[in-house]
Amino acid sequence: MTDRAKIIETFKNEESFILISHMLPDGDSIGSLLAMGEGLRKMGKKVRLFTPGKIPFMYKYLEGTESIGHEPVPVDPGMTVVVLDSSDPDRMGLFRDAVMESKTVINIDHHVTNQRFGTLNYIDSTAAATGEIVYNLLEELQVELDQGIAEALYVAISTDTGSFKYENTTPSTHRVIAELLEHGLNPGAISQKIFDERPLSFYILLKEALSGLEMYEERKIAVMALSKDIRERTGASTDDLEGIVNYTRNIEGVELGILFYVESDSEVKVGFRSKTLDASELAGRLNGGGHIRAAGCRLQGDFETAKSRVLAEARDMLNELTA
Amino acid sequence: MTDRAKIIETFKNEESFILISHMLPDGDSIGSLLAMGEGLRKMGKKVRLFTPGKIPFMYKYLEGTESIGHEPVPVDPGMTVVVLDSSDPDRMGLFRDAVMESKTVINIDHHVTNQRFGTLNYIDSTAAATGEIVYNLLEELQVELDQGIAEALYVAISTDTGSFKYENTTPSTHRVIAELLEHGLNPGAISQKIFDERPLSFYILLKEALSGLEMYEERKIAVMALSKDIRERTGASTDDLEGIVNYTRNIEGVELGILFYVESDSEVKVGFRSKTLDASELAGRLNGGGHIRAAGCRLQGDFETAKSRVLAEARDMLNELTA
Repeated sequence: MTDRAKIIETFKNEESFILISHMLPDGDSIGSLLAMGEGLRKMGKKVRLFTPGKIPFMYKYLEGTESIGHEPVPVDPGMTVVVLDSSDPDRMGLFRDAVMESKTVINIDHHVTNQRFGTLNYIDSTAAATGEIVYNLLEELQVELDQGIAEALYVAISTDTGSFKYENTTPSTHRVIAELLEHGLNPGAISQKIFDERPLSFYILLKEALSGLEMYEERKIAVMALSKDIRERTGASTDDLEGIVNYTRNIEGVELGILFYVESDSEVKVGFRSKTLDASELAGRLNGGGHIRAAGCRLQGDFETAKSRVLAEARDMLNELTA
Repeated sequence: MTDRAKIIETFKNEESFILISHMLPDGDSIGSLLAMGEGLRKMGKKVRLFTPGKIPFMYKYLEGTESIGHEPVPVDPGMTVVVLDSSDPDRMGLFRDAVMESKTVINIDHHVTNQRFGTLNYIDSTAAATGEIVYNLLEELQVELDQGIAEALYVAISTDTGSFKYENTTPSTHRVIAELLEHGLNPGAISQKIFDERPLSFYILLKEALSGLEMYEERKIAVMALSKDIRERTGASTDDLEGIVNYTRNIEGVELGILFYVESDSEVKVGFRSKTLDASELAGRLNGGGHIRAAGCRLQGDFETAKSRVLAEARDMLNELTA
């Protein structure tokens, strides 16, 4: 029997579940958590949801988020724990140890790097989002979707694909979304809330970032810089910062976008976004890490020192790319 | 026999076609034109493509755009003309008269306001884009899609739905896209080019617009202003302006976003974007027009006069809304 089949059996036979998703929750982790939880409840199961992190404001409107717990209550070792969208146990933060001591840990994820830490693992890296896997599980469990579940899954899948723009989007992704939309969703209202609407502080921060925009290497490298002071003065959050760094890459002709976030006179955080260059390789050379198109590092020293060092490495990588 | 059936027959029986789409070409008009043209060519037909306007830079990479004509050559009255994505004959600009004198005019569109000016009309306002209609026609004509046709249709449908974010997106839209993606498209690369990448001039203009951001009526109205002078100084195009106005609406809590574009000391163009308020009604009160969420008007007088007048009307409408 495959792990997937065993997971289906466990969902059918057990009475009570604890569901957990990862820290720094995103749309996929929250949407998958809510949909899986509500699906199991519809099967008559007792379910408790947890996430080791604050829910970003744009997802709070989703039905059921108010019942998601954040306190690391001791997990009962006899309980069946379902971990969603988490590539390794550390992603569970303070819940980690209690979960890993549980008798049954069902690990459901789409990250190719998943460490298969569960007692049962269902990892499908062809799925664009964990929400796509949850959709398939609920279908197999013959749970009838309602608008709440459909909306949670829509949010899970649309956020992890950047509204179907990223290259992880497949024909199956769109087929699942077609089915979800049949449940009376309004993609216009959801997308406005989730993708387009940002707090005023974000736009003030964006203005500051654009004001200091610099271009290097025949406009192939775009650089923006923000200080902790500016962020605090504008009332912007670290969520707001996340959005800014994408702007560097979106300039026509730019191959590499860099955002320097000056934490203090002796520490600078650096975010990278790239088009074809391997951003994780660049970050790695500076003792950072990340993904191929989005990565980052943290450097000791003042802004000018950090900038020279990062630009030197970036130039080298660009030259290797075009060599 | 329905018009749709007659159109299918005409495509099968005639040998030669002229295809035209509307002025100020967008992704749907260009994508539909290219896909319908290439589909008919695969049926062995002789096809010429025209559009009365410049093709925006982000669509130029599509296969076949270089062969689209812009000169208003006299259309042969015996020729079968196919008009795509154009709600009324005026949208054909300089081609209008020659087209309207043709014996057979096939009018294919998804705008609910389409004036049915063709000798044969196939209007489906439930389609999110004209590209969705073209997909259905090519399927019925048993044209085998290739990557070029699939990419043109993907661009048509994704642009008219804002990458599937707008409320016109339906389950059918996603099902069509699922089929298109089966032809080897890379949604990541296409979306980066079409949605995310903007010229540097756009970001400089955005910085200028954000620098003058003002909020009114308990932050329910956001106002930005740009002068013709700033636009020219930054080298920005009118396309760039189009993108800026959306930023006004995307601020959290904002109900109405307004962009003033000061053409001269005596003329101001105004763009409106709204969340629930009827922007076309507001524009109408100022002798302008548009859609429910996106509208505009043009006012005589200087900036301060125009601003007072627009803000007074906007306040009235907001009060009516909340009354």
